[in-house]
Amino acid sequence: LSYRIVAIAGEGIGPEVVKASLKVLQLVVKLEGFSLQVDYGWLGSTALEKFGSYFPQATIELCNGANGIVFGAVTQGGLLELRKHYDFFCNLRPIRLANSLVHKSSLRPEKIQGLDILIVRELVSGIYFGPAGRSGDEKGAYGYHTMLYYDEEIRRIARQALHKAQQRRRLLTVAHKENALPHLPWTRLVQEEAKQFPDVVVEPMLVDNLAMQMVLNPQRFDVILAGNMFGDILSDIGGALVGSLGLLGSASLNADGFGLYEAVHGTAPDIAGKGIANPLGTLEACVLMLQQWGEVRAAQRIMAAQERVLAKGYRTADLSPQGAEILVNTEQLIDLLLEELDSK
Amino acid sequence: LSYRIVAIAGEGIGPEVVKASLKVLQLVVKLEGFSLQVDYGWLGSTALEKFGSYFPQATIELCNGANGIVFGAVTQGGLLELRKHYDFFCNLRPIRLANSLVHKSSLRPEKIQGLDILIVRELVSGIYFGPAGRSGDEKGAYGYHTMLYYDEEIRRIARQALHKAQQRRRLLTVAHKENALPHLPWTRLVQEEAKQFPDVVVEPMLVDNLAMQMVLNPQRFDVILAGNMFGDILSDIGGALVGSLGLLGSASLNADGFGLYEAVHGTAPDIAGKGIANPLGTLEACVLMLQQWGEVRAAQRIMAAQERVLAKGYRTADLSPQGAEILVNTEQLIDLLLEELDSK
Ligand SMILES: CC(C)[C@H](C(=O)O)[C@@H](O)C(=O)O
Ligand SMILES: CC(C)[C@H](C(=O)O)[C@@H](O)C(=O)O
Repeated sequence: LSYRIVAIAGEGIGPEVVKASLKVLQLVVKLEGFSLQVDYGWLGSTALEKFGSYFPQATIELCNGANGIVFGAVTQGGLLELRKHYDFFCNLRPIRLANSLVHKSSLRPEKIQGLDILIVRELVSGIYFGPAGRSGDEKGAYGYHTMLYYDEEIRRIARQALHKAQQRRRLLTVAHKENALPHLPWTRLVQEEAKQFPDVVVEPMLVDNLAMQMVLNPQRFDVILAGNMFGDILSDIGGALVGSLGLLGSASLNADGFGLYEAVHGTAPDIAGKGIANPLGTLEACVLMLQQWGEVRAAQRIMAAQERVLAKGYRTADLSPQGAEILVNTEQLIDLLLEELDSK
Repeated sequence: LSYRIVAIAGEGIGPEVVKASLKVLQLVVKLEGFSLQVDYGWLGSTALEKFGSYFPQATIELCNGANGIVFGAVTQGGLLELRKHYDFFCNLRPIRLANSLVHKSSLRPEKIQGLDILIVRELVSGIYFGPAGRSGDEKGAYGYHTMLYYDEEIRRIARQALHKAQQRRRLLTVAHKENALPHLPWTRLVQEEAKQFPDVVVEPMLVDNLAMQMVLNPQRFDVILAGNMFGDILSDIGGALVGSLGLLGSASLNADGFGLYEAVHGTAPDIAGKGIANPLGTLEACVLMLQQWGEVRAAQRIMAAQERVLAKGYRTADLSPQGAEILVNTEQLIDLLLEELDSK
């Protein structure tokens, strides 16, 4: 088997974490005996410099026909366009906590042990994509953005979330704000789709309450379905639960299963270029890509290696190593992972 | 001195917590030697039954000229209209943690000790009030709500928040999402207003990151300024930090200093009518009202009594008493507070 991916490093810590993750990916590919071609694409301000556009045609041509896109980070410019261009509407953000990191959360260990949430976020519609602009009237200047959802956009992401819930613990919590946003009837639409998934329990929850419950009782959640902006905020709360956004990866899929794989964190300009960024978010995204391809054994190899390295106490700076834990930089962590992979 | 307030009980646990808080308020009024007249108003579905409207004219007439409105809770219907009618744009939500409740948070004690955040939420504009509706086109049916802010609406709430920060620790964190919502330039507008408050540090923060930082490092925050919907979500995270939304109260003020005082929690239908609701959120709202009136000593009396009762280990069910703590219902807690007040 042979795959081709496009790696888009972006800015900030993007290049460091993409390079690091690809090293691990390449070794696993070799160990598993399939082949991987990596092309390099551009997005964001580095693309603007090179091609005069945040999301250049050259990148589109590279991505067309690829098996996946591994993405680093950009500040802004290009990312929303990329997501929209390929209709990557289904953003999967698993929030899982390695046992060895339980005491890294700001939550008490008994609140967080065994945490395993999947956030399903709608990614190409809602308020980031609705009619927007600036204008003015006799009352002065104003700006606006519109949270607009076609019913069918809600239905199609609902089906994905219901499907995921069915494969897991069969509880789907739906973020909504119908007491203030009654024209976006997430509850009703999800419940209608749920008729095809009779074994899944659908639990509508006001988004404000949901944010609170994620901190009070995170273990009670299985799959959380949310629109674009609510999903954005809720998944960062997920990052707080596991102690660092640096650990979380995400997959954004379109209807054909073609996907964009990126960490949940951003460019982290404060630590960019220092070689100390946590590559595990992007690596988690690569794991999701392997799973999407059906390369389950390759995915498991990476996860197992990662767990062993963490269990031995190695930590990047974002996890503020303490006591017996050992501070490592990006390269050291990757070398440790490569060793673990090789020794198996 | 003589004050007149309108008490609006609403639904769910609303009537229980309003009645309970007013008992405490009345005793303090007596002890401090001023006088208080309480009129009873209607809002929400109970108002609909009685007057045929969620927000009846009778309630408006009662509220006109009063010194404050003490409000319980409604599911929906009337509350947004009430806030809008009196232009209660400035919603203050203090998030403070009594020392004796430190171990009630799901966060580790060292993360939460001494927590003292003030959320300043814009309350009468933004997406809950912008153009909204349902419609359809060749792609199907859709619904929409518009997050619309006049620059001046952002500026006036910014001035309030800056003023509050100046009286506190002089750090103002501004929730925004300008990488996806560029037409709502909170950062620039707040920074312009901040020129009149040179001693306040303005720190813009993406709302997703802010939600995360509230869980990772809550102690770093002083005042948080947010638009209506972001403020809604962030203040519920605040409820999670202190262990129960039942503890938080809020004041919503208009430009004349007239205000609506309510708990941050909702109707809690699961426990309504059982007499076990936590009245401390509504009581905290009454404390904010006394402070707004300049009745500082009366406010302090209530806070001190509350701290002593909590320090003795009395807890309502929402705080899941454990070990040496003593479970009390609403009435028992109020009796304990009245005793403490009398004994001083
Ligand atoms: C960079 C930004 C536009 C993006 C988003 O809000 O979608 C990011 O926060 C994310 O969560 O992927
Ligand atoms: C009841 C609801 C409309 C309200 C809001 O979102 O403003 C509530 O959640 C609040 O926070 O006061």
